[in-house]
Amino acid sequence: MAGVDIGGTKISAGLVTGDGTLERIVTVPTPAAEGPAAVLAAAAGAVRGLDHDVLAVGIGSAGVIDPVGGLVRSATDALPGWAGTDLRGGLRDHLGVPVAVDNDVHAHALGEAWTGAAAGRRTVLLVAVGTGVGGSLLVDGRVHHGARAAAGHVGHIAATPAAGLPCTCGGTGHVEAVSSGPALLTAYLRRGGTPGTGHLSRVAAAAGAGDELAAEVLADGARALGQVIGGLANVLDPDVVLIGGGVSRCGDAWWHPLLEAVEGELLPPLRGLPVHPGALGPAAAVIGAARLGWAVAA
Amino acid sequence: MAGVDIGGTKISAGLVTGDGTLERIVTVPTPAAEGPAAVLAAAAGAVRGLDHDVLAVGIGSAGVIDPVGGLVRSATDALPGWAGTDLRGGLRDHLGVPVAVDNDVHAHALGEAWTGAAAGRRTVLLVAVGTGVGGSLLVDGRVHHGARAAAGHVGHIAATPAAGLPCTCGGTGHVEAVSSGPALLTAYLRRGGTPGTGHLSRVAAAAGAGDELAAEVLADGARALGQVIGGLANVLDPDVVLIGGGVSRCGDAWWHPLLEAVEGELLPPLRGLPVHPGALGPAAAVIGAARLGWAVAA
Repeated sequence: MAGVDIGGTKISAGLVTGDGTLERIVTVPTPAAEGPAAVLAAAAGAVRGLDHDVLAVGIGSAGVIDPVGGLVRSATDALPGWAGTDLRGGLRDHLGVPVAVDNDVHAHALGEAWTGAAAGRRTVLLVAVGTGVGGSLLVDGRVHHGARAAAGHVGHIAATPAAGLPCTCGGTGHVEAVSSGPALLTAYLRRGGTPGTGHLSRVAAAAGAGDELAAEVLADGARALGQVIGGLANVLDPDVVLIGGGVSRCGDAWWHPLLEAVEGELLPPLRGLPVHPGALGPAAAVIGAARLGWAVAA
Repeated sequence: MAGVDIGGTKISAGLVTGDGTLERIVTVPTPAAEGPAAVLAAAAGAVRGLDHDVLAVGIGSAGVIDPVGGLVRSATDALPGWAGTDLRGGLRDHLGVPVAVDNDVHAHALGEAWTGAAAGRRTVLLVAVGTGVGGSLLVDGRVHHGARAAAGHVGHIAATPAAGLPCTCGGTGHVEAVSSGPALLTAYLRRGGTPGTGHLSRVAAAAGAGDELAAEVLADGARALGQVIGGLANVLDPDVVLIGGGVSRCGDAWWHPLLEAVEGELLPPLRGLPVHPGALGPAAAVIGAARLGWAVAA
């Protein structure tokens, strides 16, 4: 079985066994600027690069994906023209096998719930913190897509520290505006952090090395997100909360205030709720996509 | 089929047909101060008062209810000693028929999704605004209970206007602290509203009659709640949001700012999300409880 993760900068295809073991992975750049047909061809090429006959293919893609109709409903500028693409039909035409599709963050959650940090858990909340703040909710082990396949947008909940700040969605006051990677980097520079620090990993390294401003900036963003996650947990009562995405690799200066903020929000029955990183690393979405593929394999 | 709604002040039992029609309802006071055994006996008495043989009974009860084990996991002081009660076993002993149990707000949502304002809808978010702010999420038409049967606590999400305010849960900053009925009444009096206005319905009437302070107080609470509901909708992508509870009967002075605040939070795919009152009135939980009963009828 092949699982494919289509993102704005790269496409990964993995060969995954029936028990969720990733045997081989091929990664290629996403030809985003060349348009959807080129992206589909690149994804098919990555699968062929696995050099193995597959019964079916599962795809996790950036964007709002309709898993029933197989289409991309909407997408950001990271994949120009992606909205409206017949993701399932296009890959099926290229590869000649059944194809299942879903959003990449949902695939990530499915992967972790299959063989990773949420293995066997029924209600799972995944929060992915990177360029944006996304998420996925598994209910009874299955992706909760919602009425418009638009579920999971954890970043677009109001957070007090974000009050009045513009959000990427066009709204204001959402937690993404203070907790995403770009928001943290901007805050660090605005508050007087070393100019030229062009990547969040350097802010994280600075925090680890004792830079108080860097630590404060990471803690502020983490606390705002932790409060939102705790409130969501009070509504959803998950078995476990998993946190992924680049920002989650910022170390203790980010994790400690995050965990404290989550715990501080929880109702008594939820106290002690496990909140931790995924176990599968960047291959999680490939593995989860393969799980979708197994479900449609002939 | 009998459906029973057990609350802190009254117990209602209804005779409900297989298509969800409420044929008869009996309401008795809850002997809360006499303890759980008296409450169970009163509930059984209400069912007998329907004067009709039933195949099974469904119960919706205040508190965190374990629908699998049939027990009350926790409850507020409105029902002293209720936590730990064997709700299912106790009623079965009294009535000699299969009994299904769940939380009353979940039963309310099930009722509306059966024959009411969410009939046929798959993903339903119900928010009940009264003494507290509760809720229920239906996924694929079924109650989402979560890992500890504790899901649905919509009131315990942080809201900016509540920052620093104590919440009934022991935490601070939750929307319940500014949007519940008692919170609205307290705010009205604190801000100089007519002393002696001992009930929220009078504040609502004052708002309807042109009292600007009353209208502002209702609008502030409604906006805080609307922002939370909109953010939750961005994560859950419901077909419809239903609003119930006593505060939702405060008229346009409350509904208009609520609806505006929800809509202002929504991501593009969700704009125009239907948000409206339930259709079944106070009998919704009885009808939903009866639906649970049908599922266990021999």
